Amino acid sequence: PVPEGYEPKSEASLAAYLSGVSAVAAHLGGAAGDWRVREVGDGNLNLVFIVEGPAGGVAVKQALPYVRLVGESWPLPLSRAHFEQMALATEAQHAPGLVPDILHYDQTLALIVMELLQPHIIMRQGMIKAVRYPGFVEAITTFMAGTLFGTSDLALTAEEKKAAMAEFCGNTALCKITEDLIFTEPYRIAENNRWTTPQLDGIAREFREDAALKVAVSRLKLKFLSEAQALIHGDLHTGSVMVTEDDTRVIDPEFAFYGPMGFDIGAVIANLLINYFSQDGHATPEDPRESYQDWVLAATEGVWTGFRAKFLALWRNGATGDAYPAALFADTAGAEALKAEQEAYMDRLFTDSVGFAAAKMIRRILGLAHNIDLEWIEDLDRRAACETRCLRLARDMMVNRANYPTIEAVTAAARKMRDAA
Amino acid sequence: PVPEGYEPKSEASLAAYLSGVSAVAAHLGGAAGDWRVREVGDGNLNLVFIVEGPAGGVAVKQALPYVRLVGESWPLPLSRAHFEQMALATEAQHAPGLVPDILHYDQTLALIVMELLQPHIIMRQGMIKAVRYPGFVEAITTFMAGTLFGTSDLALTAEEKKAAMAEFCGNTALCKITEDLIFTEPYRIAENNRWTTPQLDGIAREFREDAALKVAVSRLKLKFLSEAQALIHGDLHTGSVMVTEDDTRVIDPEFAFYGPMGFDIGAVIANLLINYFSQDGHATPEDPRESYQDWVLAATEGVWTGFRAKFLALWRNGATGDAYPAALFADTAGAEALKAEQEAYMDRLFTDSVGFAAAKMIRRILGLAHNIDLEWIEDLDRRAACETRCLRLARDMMVNRANYPTIEAVTAAARKMRDAA
Ligand SMILES: Nc1ncnc2c1ncn2[C@@H]1O[C@H](COP(=O)(O)OP(=O)(O)O)[C@@H](O)[C@H]1O
Ligand SMILES: Nc1ncnc2c1ncn2[C@@H]1O[C@H](COP(=O)(O)OP(=O)(O)O)[C@@H](O)[C@H]1O
Ligand SMILES: [Mg+2]
Ligand SMILES: [Mg+2]
Ligand SMILES: [Mg+2]
Ligand SMILES: [Mg+2]
Ligand SMILES: [Mg+2]
Repeated sequence: PVPEGYEPKSEASLAAYLSGVSAVAAHLGGAAGDWRVREVGDGNLNLVFIVEGPAGGVAVKQALPYVRLVGESWPLPLSRAHFEQMALATEAQHAPGLVPDILHYDQTLALIVMELLQPHIIMRQGMIKAVRYPGFVEAITTFMAGTLFGTSDLALTAEEKKAAMAEFCGNTALCKITEDLIFTEPYRIAENNRWTTPQLDGIAREFREDAALKVAVSRLKLKFLSEAQALIHGDLHTGSVMVTEDDTRVIDPEFAFYGPMGFDIGAVIANLLINYFSQDGHATPEDPRESYQDWVLAATEGVWTGFRAKFLALWRNGATGDAYPAALFADTAGAEALKAEQEAYMDRLFTDSVGFAAAKMIRRILGLAHNIDLEWIEDLDRRAACETRCLRLARDMMVNRANYPTIEAVTAAARKMRDAA
Repeated sequence: PVPEGYEPKSEASLAAYLSGVSAVAAHLGGAAGDWRVREVGDGNLNLVFIVEGPAGGVAVKQALPYVRLVGESWPLPLSRAHFEQMALATEAQHAPGLVPDILHYDQTLALIVMELLQPHIIMRQGMIKAVRYPGFVEAITTFMAGTLFGTSDLALTAEEKKAAMAEFCGNTALCKITEDLIFTEPYRIAENNRWTTPQLDGIAREFREDAALKVAVSRLKLKFLSEAQALIHGDLHTGSVMVTEDDTRVIDPEFAFYGPMGFDIGAVIANLLINYFSQDGHATPEDPRESYQDWVLAATEGVWTGFRAKFLALWRNGATGDAYPAALFADTAGAEALKAEQEAYMDRLFTDSVGFAAAKMIRRILGLAHNIDLEWIEDLDRRAACETRCLRLARDMMVNRANYPTIEAVTAAARKMRDAA
């Protein structure tokens, strides 16, 4: 049900609208006639315009009442814009400087005007060309530690957390996309699924008949449905990260809700591993990718190691929430026991993250939405070889999670999977 | 902030109010002057009136803007009545016949008019006198399996569950009582705490210095804060059960919210075990309690065994929720794996329940709110002896949960603890 007054903006109509929003008009400078508007959305769901004026630029993101990629046959509520701007505001609070600023939000139009990230590009695009981002690990770990810790029971009182949680309970339509596309469809015959065919037909069938795998992914789905640990971004792949050589920003938190932290961490790890395996499809004798692959695995290790250290530091210095009340652990024995419990907490979170990473690696190869890291490998045999390695690792990570107690165990297994081939 | 129009009713003013509620007036029969009103509340929080007329009776429960037991110095929102009637309605749906019917709810007065349970008594009262309730296990397991399964991700779609969850997110003031009184204060110096003194001074101090115990209870607290598994009753002790020889009803779900199922199951187990240990304080040569103690432990076993069987049966026959989608487990291998996973699910739930049971046993002896099972033992040495056994078992259950894989392990340990003394 589209509200009275909603209409999708076009390159032709957007400037006139923005000229009525004084903060935005001032930011752009000049008048509507001076502004250059381009629709640049490359995502699956929404319209995104870049608007440039004499004094500055903005990005304008507008939700459509359906999935952009598919059309009106797949309706999706406009409210996702509401949840996105709420999540952006929360993230800005806990990870300042790491998300675009919001200049304006129009509830009726489901439209967000935000800081134009320029000359940023989508990180995935750079990684496909083997570009290194020396600031990425630092930024993404600060982002994840800040947002996940800051919205958890370790930082918030139960009252604060439940109030925020209730607000995000309405974002079920977006959650359902995740529930279906990540945790269910790749493991059954489903119209949405696609894969490199016929090369992957066998492994796709194998996965559909793999009872241990289906139990494992369903257990993760249950966690996604019921564990309200923190406000998670919900779509934290390398296509939601915009970078320059020295700036990193996280965009597109429209899937945000109170869910399991490991889902975000796993998303980052999964997308790095996918890129790692994809490099063998892009390498040429003139452009070998092995040293880049080393960088990708080092970054993967850095993501967990950095996140863990920062999360623990926040816990040590800002445990203002209702969980693990400081008063119980003030004596020496208590302080020591709490320290051990914090390590155990991180270990449990790592195990979750490995599982969620595996689920995301699989869905990007057997499900609806694929990654251009792999998709851009034109030779289908070569692509399928990369994909198969990625799938085999993911299957083992998900089913035999005890074999992956550390991030080094994950990266070693990735390396072994690739080198054995 | 008390709403305009709120006022606490009294025995003198209630009949006039009820005469204006036609459904209630009709149920009572006659006119207001014919009605007998008695305030009977024995709980800690609210007013409860019994009103009897020529044609029938009702129970009227009204929230006060503070904790009844303490007074205005401890404010508590009236909204608990709203959550109680919502929970009662949900429970009635999933466990028909096991809760009182609601005749009327007045939001402004925070007042619920419900079915008068008569000649029911509070089960705890009967158990102190060693009365057996042959229908209890059957009823409470039906109640728990029905309400917990029916509001979980196994029965509800994510959208249905999140909508219900959001509504109960507002019940934080009641949750906070649990968070403080059960999971925190008994493990630290706190004004609210009390215990049989000086007999228990030593063990109380021991517990406050027991780092492993404080970590374990804090991990349970985190689960309480973040695991939204199902709509739980939240206060499911034997004082929230009203019984006759052949009818059992669950009352008083004002603490309801989406939380960990094990909290309810643990509450029932804990209160049975407390009664078990208390019997040695009530036994006399003329009134030995050993065979009653056998009944209590058999009931404890029946609570878990019956719950488990019924929950699994519901899962097999009514898995209409988004978790563990049936489509993934339709083939033979899938069906077998799902069956094994269901057993594993119940094992995890049992482990949670043991932990929560332990937390409740401890809070009833070292925290603010005590059970009359123990409190009515007048000889303080004798009472302290019973309490110490209960505390020692609880401490072991909470810290060494792996030693309690089955309910029989729990009851055997209870028996051993008692017999060793
Ligand atoms: N603040 C911004 N500055 C510059 N470009 C942006 C900005 N936000 C989005 N974009 C561009 O728009 C694309 C789609 O944005 P995104 O938020 O991911 O939309 P969707 O939800 O449809 O995936 C991004 O890949 C990026 O190229
Ligand atoms: N429906 C009822 N029928 C008869 N007595 C009731 C009913 N509901 C409550 N009572 C009586 O009132 C007492 C307090 O009710 P309860 O709901 O437990 O209040 P509180 O929330 O204050 O603990 C019960 O112990 C019981 O004696
Ligand atoms: Mg996007
Ligand atoms: Mg998006
Ligand atoms: Mg009560
Ligand atoms: Mg009550
Ligand atoms: Mg005996």
